[in-house]
Amino acid sequence: MVKLKINLFINFESTYIASIKNKLLLSSNSLQTKYRKQISKYEREGFYKILFSRRDVRSHFIKKDIPLTTILRIINAAHHAPSVGYSQPWNFILIKEEQTRMKIKNSFLREHQKAIRLLENNKAKQNKYKSLKLEGILESNLNLCVTYDYTRFAPFIIGKTSIPETGIYSVCCAIQNLWLAARAEEIGMGWVSIISNRELKKILEIPKYIKPIAYLCLGYVSEFSQTPDLEKSKWLKRLALNEIIYLEKWGNQVRKNG
Amino acid sequence: MVKLKINLFINFESTYIASIKNKLLLSSNSLQTKYRKQISKYEREGFYKILFSRRDVRSHFIKKDIPLTTILRIINAAHHAPSVGYSQPWNFILIKEEQTRMKIKNSFLREHQKAIRLLENNKAKQNKYKSLKLEGILESNLNLCVTYDYTRFAPFIIGKTSIPETGIYSVCCAIQNLWLAARAEEIGMGWVSIISNRELKKILEIPKYIKPIAYLCLGYVSEFSQTPDLEKSKWLKRLALNEIIYLEKWGNQVRKNG
Repeated sequence: MVKLKINLFINFESTYIASIKNKLLLSSNSLQTKYRKQISKYEREGFYKILFSRRDVRSHFIKKDIPLTTILRIINAAHHAPSVGYSQPWNFILIKEEQTRMKIKNSFLREHQKAIRLLENNKAKQNKYKSLKLEGILESNLNLCVTYDYTRFAPFIIGKTSIPETGIYSVCCAIQNLWLAARAEEIGMGWVSIISNRELKKILEIPKYIKPIAYLCLGYVSEFSQTPDLEKSKWLKRLALNEIIYLEKWGNQVRKNG
Repeated sequence: MVKLKINLFINFESTYIASIKNKLLLSSNSLQTKYRKQISKYEREGFYKILFSRRDVRSHFIKKDIPLTTILRIINAAHHAPSVGYSQPWNFILIKEEQTRMKIKNSFLREHQKAIRLLENNKAKQNKYKSLKLEGILESNLNLCVTYDYTRFAPFIIGKTSIPETGIYSVCCAIQNLWLAARAEEIGMGWVSIISNRELKKILEIPKYIKPIAYLCLGYVSEFSQTPDLEKSKWLKRLALNEIIYLEKWGNQVRKNG
């Protein structure tokens, strides 16, 4: 099993140049000429189809390997996210090894227990919370840790001089690109945030100055849910647009009967 | 001018229910059946075309109003981003008024001067920095402030119990959805981060407990640049994929000659 995975990465390394040169850089160089063209109605509709059918996936993972070129394609999509001052402050750690995943899963289990204890005074809510499936660390085909490096191209980063947090915001934009690209490739993705970043850093040997932003689980799925899991389980529902839009200043809400 | 803008928003309010019911909720309900279907090769290619041709836009804005249904469609796209525990902790303040924009622009100018002073010891870099166009606050058709409300559905938010910052990460995912949707609609968008959040909160009457995450400028453009502005001006270049990908743990880089 471990052997197979090592082979996968040897394979990864040897196919690296070919895949990069033939499929990836293409998208940011020569294909750009094509990309300057207008977006057609069909392209726009396809885009919205991908955007609206993206889900935070924790189940329905099937046993099917993600080809390496596909992995690189979605990471390349992430890498084409906007970043403050073009600082590209992200790294992506690909995790296949089961031993590593078990350690991460144990961290999840500990943090999950802590969360359960927070609901001690609301047994109904606590039971509902306990019934929810909140991660797919072991069942998914690939785990991916996305990190933030505040030293990248430092010290002077354009646009980061007034609001330093924008570096982290860039990494989140990359994660959303990655999420949508995964959906475009029929790959489900879930974000596991019930986890200890301190433990995560130790397990993945992440240095002190690097901040883990997301721990993601990816894999092909048997289906994408029609509605978000937490809506389906009646935990919360989607807000109406008029509840979140203001005009000209905070609190100036759109009247429903205008 | 101000009259026209007020009319725009009266119009906004009266078209609100119609546009929501006919165009927006459709995308998250009945069209979902359609969206469960597989993504075709053409849809995927259209998606990547949008993703790779998205730019951080600061110039080339043209004088053309964004229709209200289009504004709502891209905010609806943002609203369909993933959020920790389905908390949807975002708000969107639409800004058309010139007076407000002038105040924001002044805040930019002050912060910009501060940034210039940081390069006092590197005149060449300072001159290059000064030559860059870094915002389109007044020239764009619409300004948009995206904020984070940490109290939304609080106190118990699933997935936020171990890493509270995930609430902010959700807002950033929404911003990236919005950015891509704008590109899909042929609308350019730029993120202005050289700004004082303290001043921004005062100008837009944002309460203490709300955190502004992004100040965005949107508008139709005469062109989308082939490469990012900061690459074109040779400020920085895009990193190679092997520089940002690690295998199994931090630092374990893909060898180029594997």
